[in-house]
Amino acid sequence: MNVAPKPLPRSAAMDLFTSTRARSQALAAPLCPEDMMLQSMEDASPVKWHLAHTTWFFEEFILKPRVRNYASPDDRFAFLFNSYYTQAGPRHARDRRGLVSRPDGEAVRDYRAHVEDSLASLMSAARDDSDDIAALVELGCHHEMQHQELLVTDLLHGLSFNPLLPAYKDPEPLPVTSEVPLTFTRHDGGLVEIGHDGQGFAYDCEGPRHKVWLDPFDIADRPVTNRDWIEFMEDGGYGDTRHWLMEGHAVATREGWEHPLYWWRQDDEWWTYTLRGPQPVALDAPVVHVSYYEADAFARWAGRRLPTEAEHEVAFRTAPIGGNLMGEAGAIGALRPLPGKGVWGDVWEWTASDFAPYPGFRPPEGALGEYNGKFMVNQRVLRGGSCATPKKQMRTTYRTFFYPHQRWQMLGLRLAGDAA
Amino acid sequence: MNVAPKPLPRSAAMDLFTSTRARSQALAAPLCPEDMMLQSMEDASPVKWHLAHTTWFFEEFILKPRVRNYASPDDRFAFLFNSYYTQAGPRHARDRRGLVSRPDGEAVRDYRAHVEDSLASLMSAARDDSDDIAALVELGCHHEMQHQELLVTDLLHGLSFNPLLPAYKDPEPLPVTSEVPLTFTRHDGGLVEIGHDGQGFAYDCEGPRHKVWLDPFDIADRPVTNRDWIEFMEDGGYGDTRHWLMEGHAVATREGWEHPLYWWRQDDEWWTYTLRGPQPVALDAPVVHVSYYEADAFARWAGRRLPTEAEHEVAFRTAPIGGNLMGEAGAIGALRPLPGKGVWGDVWEWTASDFAPYPGFRPPEGALGEYNGKFMVNQRVLRGGSCATPKKQMRTTYRTFFYPHQRWQMLGLRLAGDAA
Amino acid sequence: MNVAPKPLPRSAAMDLFTSTRARSQALAAPLCPEDMMLQSMEDASPVKWHLAHTTWFFEEFILKPRVRNYASPDDRFAFLFNSYYTQAGPRHARDRRGLVSRPDGEAVRDYRAHVEDSLASLMSAARDDSDDIAALVELGCHHEMQHQELLVTDLLHGLSFNPLLPAYKDPEPLPVTSEVPLTFTRHDGGLVEIGHDGQGFAYDCEGPRHKVWLDPFDIADRPVTNRDWIEFMEDGGYGDTRHWLMEGHAVATREGWEHPLYWWRQDDEWWTYTLRGPQPVALDAPVVHVSYYEADAFARWAGRRLPTEAEHEVAFRTAPIGGNLMGEAGAIGALRPLPGKGVWGDVWEWTASDFAPYPGFRPPEGALGEYNGKFMVNQRVLRGGSCATPKKQMRTTYRTFFYPHQRWQMLGLRLAGDAA
Amino acid sequence: MNVAPKPLPRSAAMDLFTSTRARSQALAAPLCPEDMMLQSMEDASPVKWHLAHTTWFFEEFILKPRVRNYASPDDRFAFLFNSYYTQAGPRHARDRRGLVSRPDGEAVRDYRAHVEDSLASLMSAARDDSDDIAALVELGCHHEMQHQELLVTDLLHGLSFNPLLPAYKDPEPLPVTSEVPLTFTRHDGGLVEIGHDGQGFAYDCEGPRHKVWLDPFDIADRPVTNRDWIEFMEDGGYGDTRHWLMEGHAVATREGWEHPLYWWRQDDEWWTYTLRGPQPVALDAPVVHVSYYEADAFARWAGRRLPTEAEHEVAFRTAPIGGNLMGEAGAIGALRPLPGKGVWGDVWEWTASDFAPYPGFRPPEGALGEYNGKFMVNQRVLRGGSCATPKKQMRTTYRTFFYPHQRWQMLGLRLAGDAA
Repeated sequence: MNVAPKPLPRSAAMDLFTSTRARSQALAAPLCPEDMMLQSMEDASPVKWHLAHTTWFFEEFILKPRVRNYASPDDRFAFLFNSYYTQAGPRHARDRRGLVSRPDGEAVRDYRAHVEDSLASLMSAARDDSDDIAALVELGCHHEMQHQELLVTDLLHGLSFNPLLPAYKDPEPLPVTSEVPLTFTRHDGGLVEIGHDGQGFAYDCEGPRHKVWLDPFDIADRPVTNRDWIEFMEDGGYGDTRHWLMEGHAVATREGWEHPLYWWRQDDEWWTYTLRGPQPVALDAPVVHVSYYEADAFARWAGRRLPTEAEHEVAFRTAPIGGNLMGEAGAIGALRPLPGKGVWGDVWEWTASDFAPYPGFRPPEGALGEYNGKFMVNQRVLRGGSCATPKKQMRTTYRTFFYPHQRWQMLGLRLAGDAA
Repeated sequence: MNVAPKPLPRSAAMDLFTSTRARSQALAAPLCPEDMMLQSMEDASPVKWHLAHTTWFFEEFILKPRVRNYASPDDRFAFLFNSYYTQAGPRHARDRRGLVSRPDGEAVRDYRAHVEDSLASLMSAARDDSDDIAALVELGCHHEMQHQELLVTDLLHGLSFNPLLPAYKDPEPLPVTSEVPLTFTRHDGGLVEIGHDGQGFAYDCEGPRHKVWLDPFDIADRPVTNRDWIEFMEDGGYGDTRHWLMEGHAVATREGWEHPLYWWRQDDEWWTYTLRGPQPVALDAPVVHVSYYEADAFARWAGRRLPTEAEHEVAFRTAPIGGNLMGEAGAIGALRPLPGKGVWGDVWEWTASDFAPYPGFRPPEGALGEYNGKFMVNQRVLRGGSCATPKKQMRTTYRTFFYPHQRWQMLGLRLAGDAA
Repeated sequence: MNVAPKPLPRSAAMDLFTSTRARSQALAAPLCPEDMMLQSMEDASPVKWHLAHTTWFFEEFILKPRVRNYASPDDRFAFLFNSYYTQAGPRHARDRRGLVSRPDGEAVRDYRAHVEDSLASLMSAARDDSDDIAALVELGCHHEMQHQELLVTDLLHGLSFNPLLPAYKDPEPLPVTSEVPLTFTRHDGGLVEIGHDGQGFAYDCEGPRHKVWLDPFDIADRPVTNRDWIEFMEDGGYGDTRHWLMEGHAVATREGWEHPLYWWRQDDEWWTYTLRGPQPVALDAPVVHVSYYEADAFARWAGRRLPTEAEHEVAFRTAPIGGNLMGEAGAIGALRPLPGKGVWGDVWEWTASDFAPYPGFRPPEGALGEYNGKFMVNQRVLRGGSCATPKKQMRTTYRTFFYPHQRWQMLGLRLAGDAA
Repeated sequence: MNVAPKPLPRSAAMDLFTSTRARSQALAAPLCPEDMMLQSMEDASPVKWHLAHTTWFFEEFILKPRVRNYASPDDRFAFLFNSYYTQAGPRHARDRRGLVSRPDGEAVRDYRAHVEDSLASLMSAARDDSDDIAALVELGCHHEMQHQELLVTDLLHGLSFNPLLPAYKDPEPLPVTSEVPLTFTRHDGGLVEIGHDGQGFAYDCEGPRHKVWLDPFDIADRPVTNRDWIEFMEDGGYGDTRHWLMEGHAVATREGWEHPLYWWRQDDEWWTYTLRGPQPVALDAPVVHVSYYEADAFARWAGRRLPTEAEHEVAFRTAPIGGNLMGEAGAIGALRPLPGKGVWGDVWEWTASDFAPYPGFRPPEGALGEYNGKFMVNQRVLRGGSCATPKKQMRTTYRTFFYPHQRWQMLGLRLAGDAA
C-alpha cells in the first residue's frame, strides 16, 4: 500500500496514531448518540460505524495477525465493521449500517480504547526489525483520516434530512472578500512524468510514476465560485441540453437538479445547508456539492473543459495549499471565500480522467490489495482537497474518486482548455 | 370517536392518563438512545417517534384548541410528529422518521413532561361541564395504548436487523405444556347483531351495532399453533399453489417466504427471534407473524376457511380472555404456549373480512374523522389481541386491520368452516 | 363452473361456439399484424394472445382429455397460451406476451381453425350422454366472450401509447342528448336473497344463492356522467384529501391523476382517446376509466357512497339493460350518452364490496377451480356491463372484479346512500 | 462529422446510398411483421424503427434543409423516428418504440421509398459545388450501416425472449477447426501517434490524430475463445471476488451471471442461442456476449489485463481483417471458429479505455455534434468488429463504445500485459 521505501520510525508512527485517533473522537464530541446513528443513503455511513470501522482496520490487519491470543471485545464486530474487504471475511450489508443500534456509542468507545491499548502494547514490545508494523500503523492512520472526511460529509448528509436543519457547530462570521477575477495560466505540456515518487506516504494507486504526453493547455488560477455558478443557472444552464452529457441530463432531469445539493431559494437569495446550519451562499467561495455531470456541463457552457488529472498534477505540483483547511482550529463546517488565486486544496476538483490504473500498477497481495484497485471503473478522479480533508492527506499526487452522479462530498471544479 | 354516551368522570380520565403515560415510559426504559432511533421499514416507526407522536396527539387535539396562549416547546414538532392527519396540517415523510436525530431522546422526554403538566393544569382548572375534555383524554389514552403495541412490534422488527440479535428483556423459562387438541364448536347463525353497543369506550369503526345474517358455522376452540404450522410446512404447504390466492403466492415467491417471519432452521430445530432474544419455537404456542396470504393458504390446506369477523364476534362475545396478556407484570417478549381452549386474545386472528364501514357508519367531522375511515380499502380485519396488547384495548368488538402481506405484528389465525 | 342444473343441448352449444368464434375474428379484422402484437402493460395482453389463449382453453379442457391421440399444431403452445392455471402446467411470463412474435398472426389463425375443426368432429361424434362436453363448450364460449371484452380494452390501452392516436374504427356522429337529472330510488332492504339461482349459465362465484340483511337504502337512477365528473374536478376534488382513502390519494399523487384515464385538455375543452380516435368528452355519457379510489372519492365528495353489490343486485334485478351494447352491429369504440334512466349496463359500476366468496362457495376440483376462486383478495366487485361486453355476458348476478387502482377497463360508478 | 478533407464524388455517394439502403431491406426480408415490432429492452429498438430512423436521418439532415417545399409522408414521423438529437426537436420515448404499431411495416417501406426518390432527385439536380451533400449522404450511409449492426443484435435479443427460440436463418454446418494456441507479440511502445489521419471516411471521435506515450506491452495474437472461457468458468471464475471489480461483481450477482449471455447447459454441453437458432457452443470461436466486467475479471484471472485502445490500434494497424465478416453473402447469424491468428475483426474487443475525447476534439456545431460527443462518460471503447459489422465500417481507428454492463452486442476480448 505504502509505496515509500522508508516507512516512519516507530515513535513517529505512534505519535501519528495518537493524534489521529484523538481527532476522530474530537470530531464526534459535539454529537448526541442519535446523531451518530444516522445513515441517510447507502453511500453514507453512520458516525458510529466510522469510529468502529477504523478501529477494526487496526485490529484486523495488525493485532489479529501479530498478537498471540488476541481477544476482541466481541468476535462479531469483524462482521459488523468490515467495509468491503472480501478477503477479510463476510460482512454486514452496507445499506443497513444505520439499523445497528448495538453496540451503542458507549460500547464503541470501549472498543476503540481496547484496540488502542492493545496496539500501544504491541508497539512498545516490538523488536527493532518490526518496521513493517510502523508502515501498517501509518496506513491505518491515513485510512482513518479518509474516514474522518467521510464522517464529516456523511454527517452533513444525514442531518440534512432533518426538517429542523440542526447545526453541528455554531456559525462564525465569514470573512468579507471581493470577487477574484478568473485568469488562466498556460502550460507547454510535452513529455512529462506524473505519479508519486516514493518519498513519504502515498496510496498504491498514486504510483508508479510514469511518462505522459501532454499537448499545451491553459488552466484556471482559481476554482469556479458560487458567483460563477449562479451565472450559469441564470443563463438556463441546467435546462440547455447542448451543454450536457446525455446521461448527465437524464440524471439531472430524473433527480430534479436545478442547483447544487443543499441549496434553496429564500427571499430572493440562495441559501445552503452546512454543518454550521443554514447559511446564505457565499458568492466568492468555491462552488461545492456539484456532480461531475454538472461540472462538465458548466465547463462546456463556459466554452472550456475540465482538466485531465495529469494536467492538474503538472500545474499544481509546486503551488501552495489554500486556506480552507481542517486544521488544528478544526475549521470544518462551511467553505470560506477564496483567499486569492493560484492555490489548490480549497475544494475537490473534478477532472476529465477516468479512475484507471497507472501503467505498471499492481495492487498488493491479500485483502489490502482491495483498497483501491477494485474501484477502477466508472469513477472519475478528483484532485485537491477541502475544509474536511486532514492536512496530512493533501498532496498533488492524491487521487480521490467518485461516481459522476455523486454530490454529497465537497466536490467542485476548475476550468481548463486547449492552448493555442 | 368515542361512541359511548357517557364518557369517563374527569378523575378517572386523569388516572387513566397517568397510568398510560407511565406505561409508555416503562416500555422504553430498558433501551439505549440508539435503539429508540431504529426505523427498519416505512410501516414501522422509531420508539422515540411513538413517544413524541402520542404526546403531540394530546397537544394537537386538546391543548392547542383549549389552552389560551398554549406554547409548545417547539412549533416544528407538529410537523415532525403528526402521523397522517391531513386536516391537522403538513407532516414529515413517514419513511424518514428514522433520520430525525434531534430532538433527541432527552428532548422528547422533556416534551412529554411539558404536555403532561399542561394537561394536568387544564384538567384541574376545567369547569364541571367540560366532560368532552375527559372524552378526548380517554381517546388520547387509547390512542397511546395502540402505539404501545406498535412500539413493541416495531422495536422487534428494528432489532431483528441487527446481526447480534440483541434481547430487549432477558429470557424466562417458558412453561412446559402439552398439545391442546383441535376441536370445533358449532354455531347456528341466523339474524344476529354485531358491533359495539355504546357502553364504555370504543373506536368509531366498531359501530353502529347492526344486523347480519349468518349461516350455521363451526369455529375452532383454539388458534392454530406452531405445531400445526410445522405440519403445513412439512407437507409442502408453501410451495403448493392449489392452496394459495394467486396474489398471495406471487408475494410469497417474490419474498422467498418458507416459514413465518423471524424463523430460521438451526441444528434440526426451528428457532425464532423474539424480544427475549433467539428462542426455540414453542410448539404449543399460537403461530404468530404470518401474513393473511399464509393464513388463508393454511386454512385451505386444512380443508377449512378463516372465520368472518361477524362469526368471530358472535362466537367469543362471552368467552374469557387468554393468558398471554401484557399485564402489570409486563409479560411482553415472546408468546407463551396456550393455556387451554375456548379463550381468545392470545394472538391476533386474521378474519376473512375486508375492513369496511358498518352500515350507517359516519366518521366524525374534522381531523379525528381520519382516525379509521380513510383506511377502509384492501385491509383485512383481525380480532383478538396479543401479549403486546394493553388489556384495556381488548374487547370482542375491536377491529384491528392490516394489509394481507404484513407480518411484523403479532398476527395468527383460527380455523372455521361451514356447518352441516 | 356452470352452476346450472341443465346445460345447453349440444346443437345449441355448437351454435354458440360458431358465433362466438366468429365474433372474435371479426373484432380483429380491422387490425394490422403489428396492432395485434401490442402489450402496453402486464395487465393487458396482445390481441394475438387473446385469440390463441381462448383457443388453448378449448384444447386443454376438452380436446386433450377427450380426443384420443389429439395432436396440437405445436405442443409448446400450451406453455405460451396458458394464462394462470397452475394445475394445467407451467406457462410463459405474463409480462412478456408482447415479445412473442412467432407464432405470427397467420399461424394463430391456423391454430384457431385446427381447434375449431377438431371440436366440431368431437361434437358430431359424441354420444348422447356427453352433455358434459356441451357444458364445457358453453363455458369455453363464455370464457372467450370475457376475452373479447379484454381484447377491446387492451387494444385501446395499447394504441393509446402511439403518439399518432390511431382509430380502430372511424368515428360516427354521437346522438345529441340533453342532461339526465340525477334522481334516486328508495329500497326497503330487509332479509333478501342474492346470487344466481341456477337457471342458465353463470360462473361459479355467482352462487350459491344466499340470504343477506340489508338496511334501507337509496340508489341513483343513472350512473355518474362526464358532466358530473367535471363538476367534481372543477371543485378541486382530486386535490382535497378529505374525500379520499389514504391509499387512494397516495396512488393518485404518485400517478399524477387529475382526470380519468385517456383525457386531456385542448382548446378549453376536455378530449378523450377512444377506439374511434380522439373525441370531445360527451357530457351526458357515463364517466368511464376511473379507478375505485376515484369513484369512492367522488361519492364522498357528493355526500353519498357507493352501493354494495347486494344493494345493486336487488335494485336492478328487474330493470332493463341500457343502450350501449356491443351488439350484432358491433357498436364498440366509444360510450354514447345515456338514453335515459333506470337502466343498467351502460358502464361497469364499482361497488363498495370486496370480491369474496359467497357463503358456502366451493370452487370445482382441478384447474377450472382456479377460474375465479384464487382472485378473492384485494379486488372490488363491479356490476353492470359496457359497450365492450357481449350481451350474453350481461346479467344482474354477474360479478366482475378489478383492483382499486385499475382504470383501463370500462369502469364507472353509480351513487347510493343510507335511506332515512 | 466526416474529418476527411475530400468527400466522395457524387456518383460514388449515390452508389453507396443505393447499396446501403438495399442491404437494410435485405436484412429485414426474412422477417414477419410481428418480428419487426419486437423491443425487448430500452437499449434495443424494433427492426421497423431502425428502418424508419435511418430514413429520417436523410430526411432531417439533407432533404428538409435543401429541398424547397419538401413534404414528408407524415410530419409526425420526425417525432417518432428521431433517436436522441435534442437540437432536431422533441422525440418519442425510447423505451416505447415497441408500442408503435402504426405506421406499420408497409407504411415504413413506403416512407423509405419516398425518401429515396426525393434524395435521388436532389442529387441529380445538384450543381457541381454541392459536394457537402455528398459528404452528408456518405455520413447517412455510415449511420445506416451502424444501425444495420444494431438491427441484427437487437433482433437477436428480441427473439431470445421467445420460448420457441426461432431461427432468423437456417443453420449451416460450422467448419471444423482445431484449437489455436494462445501466443503474444511484444511491442516497444514509446511516443506514438493514434487516431484517424483524414484519408477517407471516419467519425468525428476518431480524431484528431495525436501523440500518446506507451510503455512496452504484449498483446495476444487472437481473441479469447469459448474454450478459454469455459476454463475460467470451471475454475470458479464467476464466483471468486478476487478477480472482479467491486461494481462488476455486484452486477453479476444481482443479475445471476454465471456464463455469457444466451448460454445454457443441456445434456452436459454448453449451448447458445444465435440467429441460426440454438447451437452448441463452438469451442474455438471467439467468446461473445460478455460484459466489460466479465472481460476484466477474465483478464485478471489469467494474470493479464485488457489492452488500452492506443495499444490495440498500434498493434493492429497493419494486420489483416478476420474471416467472420458480414459480407455480400450475408454470413450473419453465429460466430464461426477462428481462422488463425494475428488478425482482428472477428469480434468486438473490450479495451481498458474510457470513451473520452481525443486531445483537441471539437464536435461539429448543431444537431450532428450530438452524434458521439454527448456519450463520453462511463462507457468503454471497443475495437474490432464482428460478423454483424458491415465491412465498410471496419478500420483500426474505429471506436465503438458500450456501458460496462452491456452484453447484447457482439462483445468479446483479447488479452494484453506489461512487457518486461
